[in-house]
Order: sequence, then C-alpha cells, then structure tokens
Amino acid sequence: MRVSVIAADVTPDEVVRFERDRVVLLDQRRLPDEYVQVACSSAAEVADAISRLVVRGAPAIGITAAMGYALAAQRGEDLDLAAKQLLDTRPTAVNLAWAIAEMRSIPPDPAALAARALCIRGAEIKRCHAMGGHAAKLFQRGSRPLTHCNTGALATTGHGTALGAIRTGHAAALVDHVHVDETRPVNQGSRLTAWELERANIPFTLLVDGAAGSLMARGEVTHVVVGADRIAANGDVANKIGTYALAVLAARHEIPFIVVAPSSSVDPATLDGGSIPVEERAANEVSSRFPARNPAFDVTPSELVTAIVTERGVHRGPYRFREERT
Amino acid sequence: MRVSVIAADVTPDEVVRFERDRVVLLDQRRLPDEYVQVACSSAAEVADAISRLVVRGAPAIGITAAMGYALAAQRGEDLDLAAKQLLDTRPTAVNLAWAIAEMRSIPPDPAALAARALCIRGAEIKRCHAMGGHAAKLFQRGSRPLTHCNTGALATTGHGTALGAIRTGHAAALVDHVHVDETRPVNQGSRLTAWELERANIPFTLLVDGAAGSLMARGEVTHVVVGADRIAANGDVANKIGTYALAVLAARHEIPFIVVAPSSSVDPATLDGGSIPVEERAANEVSSRFPARNPAFDVTPSELVTAIVTERGVHRGPYRFREERT
Repeated sequence: MRVSVIAADVTPDEVVRFERDRVVLLDQRRLPDEYVQVACSSAAEVADAISRLVVRGAPAIGITAAMGYALAAQRGEDLDLAAKQLLDTRPTAVNLAWAIAEMRSIPPDPAALAARALCIRGAEIKRCHAMGGHAAKLFQRGSRPLTHCNTGALATTGHGTALGAIRTGHAAALVDHVHVDETRPVNQGSRLTAWELERANIPFTLLVDGAAGSLMARGEVTHVVVGADRIAANGDVANKIGTYALAVLAARHEIPFIVVAPSSSVDPATLDGGSIPVEERAANEVSSRFPARNPAFDVTPSELVTAIVTERGVHRGPYRFREERT
Repeated sequence: MRVSVIAADVTPDEVVRFERDRVVLLDQRRLPDEYVQVACSSAAEVADAISRLVVRGAPAIGITAAMGYALAAQRGEDLDLAAKQLLDTRPTAVNLAWAIAEMRSIPPDPAALAARALCIRGAEIKRCHAMGGHAAKLFQRGSRPLTHCNTGALATTGHGTALGAIRTGHAAALVDHVHVDETRPVNQGSRLTAWELERANIPFTLLVDGAAGSLMARGEVTHVVVGADRIAANGDVANKIGTYALAVLAARHEIPFIVVAPSSSVDPATLDGGSIPVEERAANEVSSRFPARNPAFDVTPSELVTAIVTERGVHRGPYRFREERT
C-alpha cells in the first residue's frame, strides 16, 4: 500500500513549531473561520495553550509539551516546574506524560532537548504513515467509514491516526466517502476534520453525533474508525466523548470498530479502562446558561474493539499490550 | 398518584392560542434567550411556522395545525388547500395527520372548528396528565432519568409526555435529578427542556448527546424516558434523532427505556418502523459551511423498548397497537 503525500495537507510547522525563543501554534479553536497562529514564550504559556485547546489531539499535545519543555530549558526555567505545568494540563492522553518522560530521559542541554522535541514530532508523523498503511488494508473498495472528533494532521502534526488511515484508504481508491460526527461540545469534527477533508479533496458529509445509529441502521456506514487518547493494557480505549456509543452501535450492526493510534497512546501501565483518568471539562463548553456535565472522554471496553492499529500493525483481541514503542 | 399543577409551568395559551382572526405562537426557536410571540394570519402562515420550528413537538404541531385549519375556515380559505398546506409541513409526526382528520370529520362551520381545535388541545393536555400518572409508577425513589429533546409543555401545550412523566415523578418525590441531552442540531434539550425544568424547579444537568453512554456506564442513569413522533403498530418508535443510540445503550446497561406518548402519536396503520417517513431537514441546521446530512428522526425497534406509556396505561412488548384513541 503506497502512501500518497497530499499537497494540500497541513504541514507539521503549521500545527506546532519550535523557534529559538518560542513555540508557535495554529489556534485550532478558531478554525475553520480564522487561520491564526499564536506564539508561546514560556512553558507556562505552552501549558495554558494546551489547557485551552489551542492545540489538541493526543499526539499533538505530546509534541507540543516536548517543545514547551525544550523552550523552558532554552530560557533557563526550572525544569521540574515546567514539567509539572505541562503535565497538569490534561490528564487523559498518555502521550503527554510519555513525551515529557522522553524529554527528561536525556541531559538537560537546550540544543539537545530542542532536537529531541523535533525528533518526537518526526517520529509521530512517521508512525501515522505506518498506521495508515496497516489500517487501510481493513477497507474494501467502496468503503464509507464514519469517524469522530479530529484525528488528522491537526491532531498529530501530519497525516493523522484514524483520519490518516482514511487518507491512505482514499488515496488507494478504497474509501469513497467519509461520515464525520460533528463531535460536541467543541465540534472538532465539524470544524477541524471537515476543514482537513475539504483541503484534502476527500468527499464527506457532517452529521450530528446522535445520527450515527440512524446511518448505520440504513447500511450507510461500512467502518467506524477512531483515534485514542489512551489505550490500556487490555485494549480498553479512552477517546473523545461519544466514542463508546459508536462502538456499541457498531457492534449491534456488525460494523468493524477500528481504533488507530500510535504506540505513544498505548499505556501498558494502565491495566484497564477503569484506571484511566477521565478529564471533566468546564460546563460552559456545553452551556453558558444552565448547569451541565462535561466529561471530555469515555472508555470503550476492548470487547467492542474489532482491531487496534498501531505503527506495528493490526492487533486483534484479546489484547495484551506491553512496552512496544518504536 | 396525584398530579401536582406546577405554578411556574408554561400555560397552553402561551404555547399556542386561537384568536378570532389569528393563531398566536410562542417562538420556540428564540427560547431561552428571548420570549417572543408570533401571530399567524392564514393557514399558510401557520404551516410556515410549523415548518420553521416556531412550534414543534408532535402533540403541539397537531394542535397548531388544528387551529390553523379553524383559522382557514374563519377566513373563508379553501379548506382542501389549507389542509394540504398544513399536512405538507412535517412528515414524521402522525399527530399532524390525525388532528387534520379530526377537524375534517365535522362540518366546516368556523365556530365549531375553533371549538374542536380547543377541544383537541384540552384532550392532549388531559392525556399528558394521565400518562404522567401511569409512567411515574415506573420510577423508584432516587430515580435519575435521562431524557432527550423537549417533551414538556412546549411540545404538548401542557405538562408534557416524557417530561410530564418526569414532572409527575418529581412531584411524587421519586425523581431526584434529570439528565438532559442537549439534542443537536436544534438543541431542544439545552434550550427548551432546560428552560422548562428551571421554571419547574426540578434539578437537572445538561450533557452533550455523546455523553449519555458514559453516564450510563458510571451507573448514573436509572431510566431513559423519551417521547415519540410516531409509534407503529408493532411498537417501533420514531423519535428525535439520537433516540435510537440511547435505546441501544440502555439495553446494554439494562436500564429501562420508556416511551411516553399519547394515543394521537400511535399509528396502527403503520405496521412497523420501516414504513415511517423520516424527515430529512436542511443541512444548514448542522453546518453553515460544509456538506451535512440531517435526518431529524430515527426509528427505535420495539425490542429495545421496555414500556410504552399512553393515557390508557403502561404497555409492554410484544406490542400490537390498534385504534385506541380516547
């Protein structure tokens, strides 16, 4: 399976880049209406940008945190404090902790840390292309997958996880059309995935999150393909709120439910989904006027997961993940 | 079970009233931010208001159409044309066809038609209180139901169907708290149900539609209670998009899935859900920028429905509805 590079794709430097004295991020909160880049001049500012969803997506926040840590070293900040600030932003995606651990495993030389952060970014993109190749083999000609949230270049800095698999599948003439959940409350589907698919010239339609079951019942969905914020050792998957309902519906309709995520999202130290911390975000993301609950993620039990695709290949249950980072 | 009348409840005349030469509607599109009433001066204007969701909810659109028909008679309009205009607005709720058939079953005397429309409104409210009493018996002390869309006074002109059952259950000290789906794309939950529950002083929290499964998995939902736009003879239920996913999730978590609807929403002539026409609304309700699919309803198969509550009582499967209007 050959991976085509799509010219219109967003570039890694657009999503997040390290400059000598700052980390520059594409403000994903303002897409698709406005294309604005914001500069962060300290680890605290990078942490704040991660908390506020300027950048989101498990691999991208890991990469951004690594760059924030390198920036702290460059500026002579207290590195323990910088690590804590960056780690305290979002609890669910394990990539954040993984990236900071990677950075802290080498001597705190600013140039070496900056190089390591770039290296982490490059490795994540490489993993995406490998995952795309593996996952695309699960499509057949005429596939019409449904996806949730944004798992594209914006979430990974290049190609994407689930959306990367869809890109690769489309380039291989297997994927005809993509069903995109709008993905409330922050609309990463209707804002970010739609924007990426339009740029990539891949046919798609948006739907409200509640409409997925209806489309499945009509036979219009051939696969459900999603990313992950953390995968436990037993294959339980934490991902954007709404994913679990898709998995339950897919099982009822015998539609393959496929998780595409790099090994940096696999956490063998978390035995099962019950141990994954689920971030509860501010109620005002849901309603500015009435009381609201806002769990940002849910956990899909591994029994509902047809396949987990990492850069290593296609895994099928029963899952038993150990350390397998490349 | 005694039905308490809640003083703060919206009144029937607020939702829709018949005046000598017009039908006046509370504009539900603008709630909760603005409280605005709009006057319709012809059957065509009433039909337009129904199409545009000024008024919505299966019983309320039936009542409004009846008033629109009476208005047409008052104004000397062509009654066949008026009936057609009103019927062509929204295909899924059977109450619309039922109400127009009721109106056309009597001689076309303006005063008699106006009286009949008021009578239909009164009968629907009476049904709601009866349903509330029956359905509330399905709650236990400490119940925390989840509901979808708006099925309150705004949808029925008084008390409500599913929300009526919740009101009655709360008044009987059985319901502690209500989980309210925001109900995309038009947010009838986060705009209308929240507004009604706040007025009725019933504790609630909003959640995005995708979060229901997560709350069920945590054991926080004791019942799912929804209304219906049409119930087929075999008990298949057409209701607001997203209902089907709730039913599938409730079955997985062994949570009772309860449909509360008047006999005017039961259509014995429709044998099963496959024959219910599902309205596809304009894509711009979902996205003003990207292509979208927008089915307004989905069909929940009767095997997933624990109970259907009408004014007659609590029905359980296998369902076989025949003519049973009161």
